[in-house]
Amino acid sequence: MTGQADRRLVLAGMGATLAAGTLWGRARAAEPTRRFGYAVVGLGSYATNQIMPRLAECEHARLTALVSGTPEKLERYGSEYGIPATHRYSYAQFDRIRDNPDIDIVYVILPNSMHAEYSIRAAQAGKHVMCEKPMAVSAAEAEAMIAACRQAGTKLMIGYRSHFEPYNLHAMEVARSGVLGPTRIITSEHGFYAQPNQWRLHRPLSGGGSLMDIGIYALNAARYLAGEEPVEVSAMEQTDKSDPRFATVEDRIDFHLRFPGGALASCVSSYNSNHNAYRVHGQGGWLRAEPATSYTGHQMWVHRDGETQQVRLPTPAKNQFVAQLDHLPEAIMAGTEPRASGEEGLRDMRLIEAIYQSAREGRAIKLTA
Amino acid sequence: MTGQADRRLVLAGMGATLAAGTLWGRARAAEPTRRFGYAVVGLGSYATNQIMPRLAECEHARLTALVSGTPEKLERYGSEYGIPATHRYSYAQFDRIRDNPDIDIVYVILPNSMHAEYSIRAAQAGKHVMCEKPMAVSAAEAEAMIAACRQAGTKLMIGYRSHFEPYNLHAMEVARSGVLGPTRIITSEHGFYAQPNQWRLHRPLSGGGSLMDIGIYALNAARYLAGEEPVEVSAMEQTDKSDPRFATVEDRIDFHLRFPGGALASCVSSYNSNHNAYRVHGQGGWLRAEPATSYTGHQMWVHRDGETQQVRLPTPAKNQFVAQLDHLPEAIMAGTEPRASGEEGLRDMRLIEAIYQSAREGRAIKLTA
Repeated sequence: MTGQADRRLVLAGMGATLAAGTLWGRARAAEPTRRFGYAVVGLGSYATNQIMPRLAECEHARLTALVSGTPEKLERYGSEYGIPATHRYSYAQFDRIRDNPDIDIVYVILPNSMHAEYSIRAAQAGKHVMCEKPMAVSAAEAEAMIAACRQAGTKLMIGYRSHFEPYNLHAMEVARSGVLGPTRIITSEHGFYAQPNQWRLHRPLSGGGSLMDIGIYALNAARYLAGEEPVEVSAMEQTDKSDPRFATVEDRIDFHLRFPGGALASCVSSYNSNHNAYRVHGQGGWLRAEPATSYTGHQMWVHRDGETQQVRLPTPAKNQFVAQLDHLPEAIMAGTEPRASGEEGLRDMRLIEAIYQSAREGRAIKLTA
Repeated sequence: MTGQADRRLVLAGMGATLAAGTLWGRARAAEPTRRFGYAVVGLGSYATNQIMPRLAECEHARLTALVSGTPEKLERYGSEYGIPATHRYSYAQFDRIRDNPDIDIVYVILPNSMHAEYSIRAAQAGKHVMCEKPMAVSAAEAEAMIAACRQAGTKLMIGYRSHFEPYNLHAMEVARSGVLGPTRIITSEHGFYAQPNQWRLHRPLSGGGSLMDIGIYALNAARYLAGEEPVEVSAMEQTDKSDPRFATVEDRIDFHLRFPGGALASCVSSYNSNHNAYRVHGQGGWLRAEPATSYTGHQMWVHRDGETQQVRLPTPAKNQFVAQLDHLPEAIMAGTEPRASGEEGLRDMRLIEAIYQSAREGRAIKLTA
């Protein structure tokens, strides 16, 4: 165990957030340009196409280690990104990351059912954790992840990239500002046609179907557009079990959310049709985004006073991936909770469980705060 | 009672549809250009702004009588449309329409709770019936209307103007043709900001809130786009009872419909925000309409093979109002059921009752065919 992790454990009783913040504040004061080292765990397409190339563009982050079960991938991406053999790990070797001071953060980009295990082991190795969404396959797992990071004094952040994307940030601002009037209706639709033979269609790896994978964008957007937490959910699932793609997971699951401020959200989650849109309807106008949560090419319109205007935002200095990857180092340095925290991920997991329960039992589920 | 109504009653045992058709076929063969006389019952804004001006444009229909409780309206519109005093009726005089051979069809454009009574009395007076949507305030009333018209041998049609509007007809055709692939998701949203102090906000007249008035468009569109009848509904209502507008009726009620072919519909009904849109998502593309069911200015897009194209249809010879008004005379002459029949209206009423029940009981409601 490194001295750094030791100190974190010692300081845990003082409050992990304060402790970690103080620690970094002291230790890193003389290194303002230091870039935090990320170990990427799981070298699938999202990791290799979206995340790893962006780490080179980061202000506060860099790729320092790789974890994969496929030696060829370690060799290929290790060479490509200049990661020495000492910083390439198989899953069997994973826990050795604790001895590597070049790894500050572990980014878990594994199939969903492995999120909790590797996040917890990363925390136990004294590393901060970035974990892809969905955070886990159950609320109980999510709670265990939060507890493990709290105990280790490490930070936990979930890969909700839209929380760092300018159009989505603009939509949150517009929706919550009142310029559209009080929010009455949110519609939020996410889906794609799922190709067969993927881990996402295999429940032991995915933990569920479209809702876990793509519907979570509809859910998360409804929440960040409403700016508050739903108090009731109601859902309807439609799955053709004779379609081999859906032998173990759901195809479509549509759901309603009731928010305490009086908004209703009407959400679509689909593995059988393409959707990437949301809309916020206030009493006095609406905002529409489509595509809403894509990698690039966001489009948005605002309708007020009888006129529809397209929103055109300047290209940000950091795109959503870079901003997300830089945010965890920033939170570590500042000693603050990251914007897309473990608690944020847990809220979605609890709602996902309630949505599944509602669909299964054919009744609305009330949520306790 | 006129001889015409007598013959209908005598022939009722032979099957009312056949009887009425045969009757008109014989009686009217020599009068190919005859325009059927409409009595408009209720001189509110929809009647006076949308329906009465269009009757002059009809091929098979003309305005021949007016019924209103306001003498000033009878005088004003009677003069404007050249309706003689003998063809102007108060509600107390309504049943005398039976003695007026210039009235073939009674168009009921009254507050919802009066639809059943005046439709039934019109049928009992031997007249065909056109009734605005919602057909009635309950399925039981709708059934009574159907029974009364059947017994009288008169036709019954509901004022679903979208069934006669080119963009909506095109959408039905596209959705059902399979060019988008099997329909997976329908979204259908209708709403407007309800101004206070209207009969539509007074349950004894309206029978309900947004669902009865505007949400029925979302419901009806979901059904005509799916091309089949839902087997399950689930709904969530949100009404601020402290808002004086909503003392007796609901504000918003969102609902899901499950169709036997595997489509789900996600529908919005609102009295607190503006919506007029639907979308059909097949496996291979989508169709979007917005505004979807407006009086004019329909817009539509179809997305297939990665490309979105705006649909531009030629202006029809008859707009939706004229086509609707001409259709009932055509059905009478042809001896066929009108396209938007009483049975069609009844299906919506049964679903509306199920939607209310679902929202009230917080559970999904399965429907029997």
